[in-house]
Order: sequence, then structure tokens, then C-alpha cells
Amino acid sequence: MSNSLGMLTPGKKVSLKDWDPKDTQDIKNKEEIQQETDQLKERFAELQSKLFTEKKQAVLFVFQGMDCSGKDGVIRHVFSNLNPAGVTVHSFKSPTAEELSHDFLWRAHSVTPGRGYIAAFNRSYYEDVLITRVHGQVSDKLAKRNIKHIKHFEQLLLDCGVKVVKIFLHISKQFQLEKLIDRIEKPHKNWKLDPSDLQERKFWKQYTQYYEDVLELSATKQAPWYVVPSDNRWYRDYTVLRIAVQTLEEMKLSDPDPRPELQSLLPELYKERDKK
Amino acid sequence: MSNSLGMLTPGKKVSLKDWDPKDTQDIKNKEEIQQETDQLKERFAELQSKLFTEKKQAVLFVFQGMDCSGKDGVIRHVFSNLNPAGVTVHSFKSPTAEELSHDFLWRAHSVTPGRGYIAAFNRSYYEDVLITRVHGQVSDKLAKRNIKHIKHFEQLLLDCGVKVVKIFLHISKQFQLEKLIDRIEKPHKNWKLDPSDLQERKFWKQYTQYYEDVLELSATKQAPWYVVPSDNRWYRDYTVLRIAVQTLEEMKLSDPDPRPELQSLLPELYKERDKK
Repeated sequence: MSNSLGMLTPGKKVSLKDWDPKDTQDIKNKEEIQQETDQLKERFAELQSKLFTEKKQAVLFVFQGMDCSGKDGVIRHVFSNLNPAGVTVHSFKSPTAEELSHDFLWRAHSVTPGRGYIAAFNRSYYEDVLITRVHGQVSDKLAKRNIKHIKHFEQLLLDCGVKVVKIFLHISKQFQLEKLIDRIEKPHKNWKLDPSDLQERKFWKQYTQYYEDVLELSATKQAPWYVVPSDNRWYRDYTVLRIAVQTLEEMKLSDPDPRPELQSLLPELYKERDKK
Repeated sequence: MSNSLGMLTPGKKVSLKDWDPKDTQDIKNKEEIQQETDQLKERFAELQSKLFTEKKQAVLFVFQGMDCSGKDGVIRHVFSNLNPAGVTVHSFKSPTAEELSHDFLWRAHSVTPGRGYIAAFNRSYYEDVLITRVHGQVSDKLAKRNIKHIKHFEQLLLDCGVKVVKIFLHISKQFQLEKLIDRIEKPHKNWKLDPSDLQERKFWKQYTQYYEDVLELSATKQAPWYVVPSDNRWYRDYTVLRIAVQTLEEMKLSDPDPRPELQSLLPELYKERDKK
């Protein structure tokens, strides 16, 4: 069904109850993977530096998940060690009037990463086959047509050098409940709560079903979906970091080419240095 | 092969020599169609106004053709009578470094028309399967893959309310020659000439062949290609105008809905008027 990182097999039926949101693959606690996490972060930064100097490829990380699944948190933790000059993060909110006047991929396409860059999408064009479908703004038929458009769009990106990686942060309904209560009880967390989140929670079942559709229909070998158990934040961050590093390792990024012709410029510079 | 407006039948092999660039369909001169042209212009403006108030659909006119085929001219003549608030024109030049760092549809997607708008593209994303192919920057295989991406992209636009109409301005090699000489002989036309146009002219045969590929592979019922004989400017403008009007007629644009509830606001206003 998936490898140890939760990568889905394209075309296979997906049932989210097959994944335990609390799963940590027998890792007992954060401390056990602390050293490896540090190493992964360092490696991720090295690889990003190569990507940035090479300027031939790009990577788009799409993060989806229910409210409270930790999309903000995972972006903060996993991408924080990178050179921010080469990273862009886009949070997709309710579309503006201008955005709504265009096709549903318009706003996302404009912020896809150029060669050399990593982009992280906090929510994405997938909302247009999820929240709109849950609320009946988009019929089942239209949702499936739009998933096809998404696949073509991602294939365009892939063919033009943008690696696409999609990550579903998988939490339990109980976990969300605890988070919502926490956000209301603790004054300093109040800002995180949008009262409408409590309304969306009532559609949990439908969201789950439509997510399963999305995961089944849009997972491809080149633009894979990963299901990441996310009830434990440390395991979530660790897993996403491993996915990120593995993705960039597989891109076979090359070191910048040496330019032997530069050598001939050295004598002049040496001469100036020797004068002092 | 095509109807009287030059619309191509999807999937049919295209041979441009089957069209006479000098064709005027037995119309003798500009005067003969002057009255009809004026009426068409008026109707086009009416339809645009409906499109603009309705704000449900949009139209994208793509203009392609060899150098000197009159892309600028046709846009100036056919679109000049419209409300400019609802029209955008984009000329696609050599891509910038920023544009080149993204997929080839990125720059075009960002300037597609929103609901209510008409956009005219002077050259377009089709250059990415023409000029780049002529100069070997894109292989035959890549060109055909990119034509597929274009078809998917246009289908996305169509599904999201943007009608796509593609117009090939068909001129003879002799006509181009006369235009080039004219642009060099007449000082006030010098600004129109890019010396590289003389180089591109040498690839006439290859351009013709690759245009034929494009026309055959990307003409669809919903996003048709029209071949417009363009050695006679007046016939070219007249034909494009007819295509434009027919396109908007077929969109079944509706008049803005009356809002009966507004009637209740009148008594107050009448009262104020009566006071004077």
C-alpha cells in the first residue's frame, strides 16, 4: 500500500482508516531520532544549496490536511534551516474576487517555483476539489474533471523541471478536538482559531471520503502523495524531513561546474596581493 | 476542410498551400463590404458589453502568423471599437530570464482573461512549439509533448468559462518580401523592422511545416483554429471581425437580470425630484 514513508501506490484504492494517525513506526520518542533529525536538516540544506546554484530544477511541496493537522508547523520546522532566498511559502486562503474570476489553477500556477527554488504550498489547488465539493459548490462530476486538470497541470510542471511532492498530514478526529479545545482555553492560542473550523469539523466524514478520492486519483509515480501520520508532531516533522531529503537526493543535483578559464585571471590578482 | 471563415476540422491533416493567401471569396474590394464591416463592429461592441456586464464568461483570441502577417494591425482594427476597460492585449516577446525559469505556459496563464474580459494574444504559447522548434531548442518529440500540454491548458480554460479562438494569419512569401522592403525603404516605417526578421525569413519552409503540425494537432471543436488569408488587409480584418462576432453570438450571452426590488427605492427619489 505504501513504503515506510507513506508513499501511495498510484491508482490503488485508498482507505484512510488503514493508517493509524498515532503511528510512529516503533520509534518511542523524539529523543530517539533527535540526532538523525539534525543530520537530515543539514543534508536538506546542502541539497537546497545545490538546487539553488544548479538552477535547472525546482521542487513544489504541497501540504494538505484537516484543520489543526499542523501544516503551518511542519513548514516552520522542516524548512526553517534552509536559505530563505531560495524558498517561497504560499498559504492558500479563500480565493479573492480576482482569483475567482479565473480558472481554479490560475492563482497557484503564478506562484509555482522557478528553477532553483523550493516552494511550499500550505493548502493548494486541491482545496478546489475538497472544500468546494463538501459544500456542494462543485459536483462530483466537476470534482473529478478538475482532478484530471490537476494531473495535467502537475505533468506540465514535471516535464518542465518542477518536481511535485504532495503530503497529506493525517490526524485523528480526537486529536483535532483536543487542539480546538486548547486553542480556545489558552488565551495566547486564541488567534489560531477560526470559529468556522468548528463548522468544518462536522463534515469530517465527507472530507475523509473526498480526500480518499483525491489520493487515489491524483497519486502518480512522478508526483506522489505521502500519507504522514501526524498525531505526534515530532514524528510528523521527522517523516516530512525524510521525504524532503529523499526527494532531493533522487533529483541527482550536480555541483556547479568548475570554470578552468578563470585560472588565467589569477596572476594579475596575485601580483596585486604581492605588492602589499 | 474548413467553413467559409476558415475554421479547421479537428484532426485533419493541414496543408497550407491549399489556402490562397490572396483569397477574398469573390469580394472585389473594401468598399463592397464597408457597410457590413461597420455593422459587424457595432455588433461586436454590443456583444462585448454583454460579456462585460454578465461577468460569467471570457474570450481569448490567439493571433499567430509569420512576420509581417499583420498581427498588430488586425488587433488595432478589429478590437478598436470596444470598451477598452474590458479588453487586454498581450504581445509575447522573447521570454525574460524570470519567464524562462518557469514552465512554458506560466507567463501566458497569468494573463488569461478573467470573467467578463476579452484578451488578444499577439503571438502566444504557440511560439514555444514553433520558433524554438525551428531553431532546434526543442526537439520534435518535445514539441509534440508541449502541444499536448497546450491542449490540456486550453481545455482547462474552456471548462472554466474562457472561450479560446485561434487565428492564423496566412500570407505569401512574396507579400512578406514586399512588406520588408517597404519597411526599409520608408524611413517612417523603419521602426517596424527587426533585422532578425530577415534571418527568420530563411526558415519559411520549416515554419510552414511546423505551423501545419500545430494546426492539425491543436485544432479542436471548442478551441478552433481559423486560417485567414491575409495578403489583403481589408479582407483579413473583415474575416477576423466575422469570426469574433460569430464567436460571441454563439456564447449566448444574457442581458443583465432586472432587479424588481429596486422599484421600491423610487418613491423616495421621486419625492425629492418633486420638491424642486
